[in-house]
Amino acid sequence: MNQKQFKHTTQICVRNYEVDWQGIVHNAHYLQYFEVGRIEYLKALGARLDLNTINGESRVVLVRNEIDYKAPAHFDDVINISTRVSFIKNTSFAMEGIMEKDRTKELVATNIAFHVWLDPREHASVPVPDEFRRMVQRFEGADCEIFWPTYKV
Amino acid sequence: MNQKQFKHTTQICVRNYEVDWQGIVHNAHYLQYFEVGRIEYLKALGARLDLNTINGESRVVLVRNEIDYKAPAHFDDVINISTRVSFIKNTSFAMEGIMEKDRTKELVATNIAFHVWLDPREHASVPVPDEFRRMVQRFEGADCEIFWPTYKV
Amino acid sequence: MNQKQFKHTTQICVRNYEVDWQGIVHNAHYLQYFEVGRIEYLKALGARLDLNTINGESRVVLVRNEIDYKAPAHFDDVINISTRVSFIKNTSFAMEGIMEKDRTKELVATNIAFHVWLDPREHASVPVPDEFRRMVQRFEGADCEIFWPTYKV
Amino acid sequence: MNQKQFKHTTQICVRNYEVDWQGIVHNAHYLQYFEVGRIEYLKALGARLDLNTINGESRVVLVRNEIDYKAPAHFDDVINISTRVSFIKNTSFAMEGIMEKDRTKELVATNIAFHVWLDPREHASVPVPDEFRRMVQRFEGADCEIFWPTYKV
Repeated sequence: MNQKQFKHTTQICVRNYEVDWQGIVHNAHYLQYFEVGRIEYLKALGARLDLNTINGESRVVLVRNEIDYKAPAHFDDVINISTRVSFIKNTSFAMEGIMEKDRTKELVATNIAFHVWLDPREHASVPVPDEFRRMVQRFEGADCEIFWPTYKV
Repeated sequence: MNQKQFKHTTQICVRNYEVDWQGIVHNAHYLQYFEVGRIEYLKALGARLDLNTINGESRVVLVRNEIDYKAPAHFDDVINISTRVSFIKNTSFAMEGIMEKDRTKELVATNIAFHVWLDPREHASVPVPDEFRRMVQRFEGADCEIFWPTYKV
Repeated sequence: MNQKQFKHTTQICVRNYEVDWQGIVHNAHYLQYFEVGRIEYLKALGARLDLNTINGESRVVLVRNEIDYKAPAHFDDVINISTRVSFIKNTSFAMEGIMEKDRTKELVATNIAFHVWLDPREHASVPVPDEFRRMVQRFEGADCEIFWPTYKV
Repeated sequence: MNQKQFKHTTQICVRNYEVDWQGIVHNAHYLQYFEVGRIEYLKALGARLDLNTINGESRVVLVRNEIDYKAPAHFDDVINISTRVSFIKNTSFAMEGIMEKDRTKELVATNIAFHVWLDPREHASVPVPDEFRRMVQRFEGADCEIFWPTYKV
């Protein structure tokens, strides 16, 4: 996985209060950076910013995060965060992120974040809306394994 | 000002991610600690936790913070945070905080946080509700300079 | 996996600034809570607090985090965080965490954090020190799959 | 005080995890933003980034922060942070900050941060180094009330 496989990249600069006593970015902040990446990605898609209520009737819930730490980022490092939707299934989808140092292209961390679409009144998962599938397909082209439920065929 | 002048004290333990590259608590975290103190104080008062809508019609807004840093706190330090309402005026009130190290009683920082009661529809300040004045007076006794607006006399 | 399988539990209370615009704890804060759990665990083991230099010659590096979000935590929730070392291999070990709401025992999140022991001068992994293996074995008893390198047999 | 009186401005965009349950930036994050401003200012001055050891023998310590909150910032707001050194005395100096919304120029918050130069071995304040005075004077011109100790005359 490298940044060339991604169509969306945004940039952050490590702030001093994100650096811990080892002089490196604390592990929880990488999750925040990846989320910055996801939100900028969703804005680039044309999605309304509040992912939480993208169709007014359901909610998107983050159910699992996997982060691999490859090399530490330091204070004042400029970091490129690339983001994509890697798949959409019936009621869930995953977003991948990858962070590289801007200057050296060193890989800093990778992330995959699994989301489920929920009906909050029923506390049950619901199909990912077609509107969201189309937005992603338009942006990602053939690179995203988008699953269209069989009733769509 | 020392902790004996306060009727309410709560405790936190410095977490490793709150410690910066100098090995000491980052200056913004002290504000978070003082806010922990204010919230525990309001709970002890019997106030509903959402200070924001204490009477359902108005909002409490933080308008000014003053913090004096006296001695740095370090990872794993147990800190006692004492809190009080120091005065209530017509539409505003102030809460003071003081932090000491539990083991050495060393003074870490002091804070005064100024709040205003607002009517969010009118974008105008409104009198601090009598319910809140009474709660504070009951808890603080004579130590708090509570101002009752003249129409109350 | 439930908290009865863990010998160490510590407690935190959700602070208001950890709660996001959905009224629930932001996903990155759970990582911070699990780290609070790991540090309290290491203190209970008798380890020196600075895990980073546990034997003065090498460093412990977090290389991967997996978090499953089961149910959201809210402001002022008291959360029990249980922690254990689940295995020690030649140059790596993993720590598991589980968070439950104190009042309802509802499962909030689970975590597994993979660490590697490094020689920072060589940028190479080194065996987990025997001192650390013994500390964990003493604390965990038979429940931890501790790997002793073959030269130990 | 407005941004035209400042020679240095940097920009941040409000991140979703900085927004609290009221939908507005939590009060402690403004301190972090102002510190981003101070660090970018010091870089623009040509100072080495680690303000802490600017002359290798002494430390800069933040001793007091004053923040006035004027209007709340919201998720995704672009904020301009202007920073300057407002005075340098014998052993202390102050840095002022002002935050405005990029789109509307609405004033968000103002800050003044008081620093003292310390000799950490003696635990005593020491004169602000001439190197730092010159850096600031070169950058600010006549706008900064720089105090040169009388022994300099």
